[in-house]
Amino acid sequence: MRRPSLAPIAAALPQTVPFIGPESLERRLGQRFLARLGANESPFGAAASATAAMALALADGWKYGDPENHDLRLALAGHHGVASDQIVIGEGIDGLLGLAVRLYAAPAQTVVTSLGAYPTLNYHATGFGARIVSVPYRDHAEDLLALAAAARRDNAAIVYLANPDNPMGSWHSASAVTQFIEAVPQTTLILLDEAYGEFAPAGIMPPLDTSRPNLLRLRTFSKAHGLAGLRCGYAIGERQTIASFERVRNHFGVNALAQAGAIAALADAGHLGRVLRDTTAAKHRIAAIASASGLTPLPSATNFVTIDCGRDAGFAQAILVALADLRVFIRKPMAPGLDHCIRISVGTAAELDLLASALPQAITATAALRPAG
Amino acid sequence: MRRPSLAPIAAALPQTVPFIGPESLERRLGQRFLARLGANESPFGAAASATAAMALALADGWKYGDPENHDLRLALAGHHGVASDQIVIGEGIDGLLGLAVRLYAAPAQTVVTSLGAYPTLNYHATGFGARIVSVPYRDHAEDLLALAAAARRDNAAIVYLANPDNPMGSWHSASAVTQFIEAVPQTTLILLDEAYGEFAPAGIMPPLDTSRPNLLRLRTFSKAHGLAGLRCGYAIGERQTIASFERVRNHFGVNALAQAGAIAALADAGHLGRVLRDTTAAKHRIAAIASASGLTPLPSATNFVTIDCGRDAGFAQAILVALADLRVFIRKPMAPGLDHCIRISVGTAAELDLLASALPQAITATAALRPAG
Repeated sequence: MRRPSLAPIAAALPQTVPFIGPESLERRLGQRFLARLGANESPFGAAASATAAMALALADGWKYGDPENHDLRLALAGHHGVASDQIVIGEGIDGLLGLAVRLYAAPAQTVVTSLGAYPTLNYHATGFGARIVSVPYRDHAEDLLALAAAARRDNAAIVYLANPDNPMGSWHSASAVTQFIEAVPQTTLILLDEAYGEFAPAGIMPPLDTSRPNLLRLRTFSKAHGLAGLRCGYAIGERQTIASFERVRNHFGVNALAQAGAIAALADAGHLGRVLRDTTAAKHRIAAIASASGLTPLPSATNFVTIDCGRDAGFAQAILVALADLRVFIRKPMAPGLDHCIRISVGTAAELDLLASALPQAITATAALRPAG
Repeated sequence: MRRPSLAPIAAALPQTVPFIGPESLERRLGQRFLARLGANESPFGAAASATAAMALALADGWKYGDPENHDLRLALAGHHGVASDQIVIGEGIDGLLGLAVRLYAAPAQTVVTSLGAYPTLNYHATGFGARIVSVPYRDHAEDLLALAAAARRDNAAIVYLANPDNPMGSWHSASAVTQFIEAVPQTTLILLDEAYGEFAPAGIMPPLDTSRPNLLRLRTFSKAHGLAGLRCGYAIGERQTIASFERVRNHFGVNALAQAGAIAALADAGHLGRVLRDTTAAKHRIAAIASASGLTPLPSATNFVTIDCGRDAGFAQAILVALADLRVFIRKPMAPGLDHCIRISVGTAAELDLLASALPQAITATAALRPAG
């Protein structure tokens, strides 16, 4: 039997993708993780007020959500001091990245990112036929000068920057980011991913400037707000750039519960404050646990700690595998230059207790397998 | 200041789209609807078991949902008697239609649909630069012979058929659909939208055939299962065709609550039985209300009744507008040949009481404005 042909761009794509969730790993390993420290989620959960709002909204779950996301955009506009038509809501930042690439990067045009940065951006860029130019990290941070230079050199359609960064946890100052923005051509769309922005100390995020057509600030309810499972992110930008998403977004795609939960979460500054405090404490504990095992925790402006394991990529990978055997889920950067590190997300006290006992065991198990470097 | 250029396909798209939700209409009208009879939702709600499962899942809302949707696919596989790798989950059928077009219709290739059929299919086809060929309805039903002929003539990339149909509520027998499937070229992907399948009497839906690479059966939890706000649909098909979605889908896009709710809903045959019974009763009542006002209800295999208003499109539109003034939300087909009709979704007893009093008033108001045809 003959079959339909894939469109040329789709035909050229990999058949499998690297998005392996902890649940898939659990199914492969045949056991549940006891510590879930790999997805940069917030184990401190959503605000009780957000959970209550979603529980209330469940009764109306038979209705399609508002396709204009009116109330949520209004709440965000008030929160950020922008107009609601300077905001677009999407199914997480992931969804918005895909739409942005589709809108602004024609096939074969260039998307500039950092080598080892957020893989979903690459997934979408490749998925729409764009050409990816990857700039190496410099001193465990995204290299702003090199990113801007690559954008200029290739007249890039898009340049991606995460600040604070994932997977390294590093950051640049607001003034450095502002200089970067000014160094990028006005015709290159800057996707400034601020998923971890709530965790960042003061002075990292530039003031919101909605006058610049080539700048989108991407935010999410998945991290500090503890709503990863609900799928709700947003972009803030100049009106006409924001309006362009109307051409391609899945208008009924943001679920009704997410809209209700996000509005409540945004209003609950008390919960957010507690999450930030607990996140900071958990990061200090992770750093101490790593140091006690002779590893080097890197400074972090996020909700995870990236740890230099001091040897090669194989050593870091072996620690990850040994931790998984001990039912501790973490992740690690995979790109050259970063791959000697592991990345550990904040966890509850019980999860970090487990990490404290498992990490030395994992290192011992790894050392037994391999000669010293 | 210069600005980034839209990619050529995006640049050619309309700046605004016709997806106006009832909430938007309420904001324009300055009052809430008292009867929400226009979105083909299920006012009988989700199963209590599904709501309970989602309430339970709220506590884990801080986790990303399983990107493989493993448990839901397994439940669906058992339910439908297929393998779980013959199923892909998406953010509603809307999301899956977009992915299918992106995968299988290259720019300028042909997508065949019916003139006035589901507009979101057209939105995606246009959105990815495809060329739409629209086949007129015949006797208020999609014209299977003409659709298959158009697919053959244009060597179409995709042909879309909804059975039962929206917006007309009409249907074809399983044997007629099977003949249609066989008449379409093997290289044309058939998107068989069965969103309303649970409402269809026996003998409408062909047996599931997962051996045919060019056939996707699209189902949803938004209609009979009462989970429209949760955004969860699925496609059943041949393995390799299903696997192709891995290349482009938003892997973390289906939210965790939807996955939990859908599994519970699928298991609750008792609730589904009550919904089908209540839906049938509500359709009978809508038909009686229409007949009492001298309008002609069309037979329906869905959860709505399409009503021939007996005059021109302007008359039908005026009834819709007059009903909105009376705080009753309905919709109507807009395409030539169908636009003399209005479409009324099932409602609660209270909503249909309101419809029973409002419809004669709306017709009177309309008649006062316009001379008889």
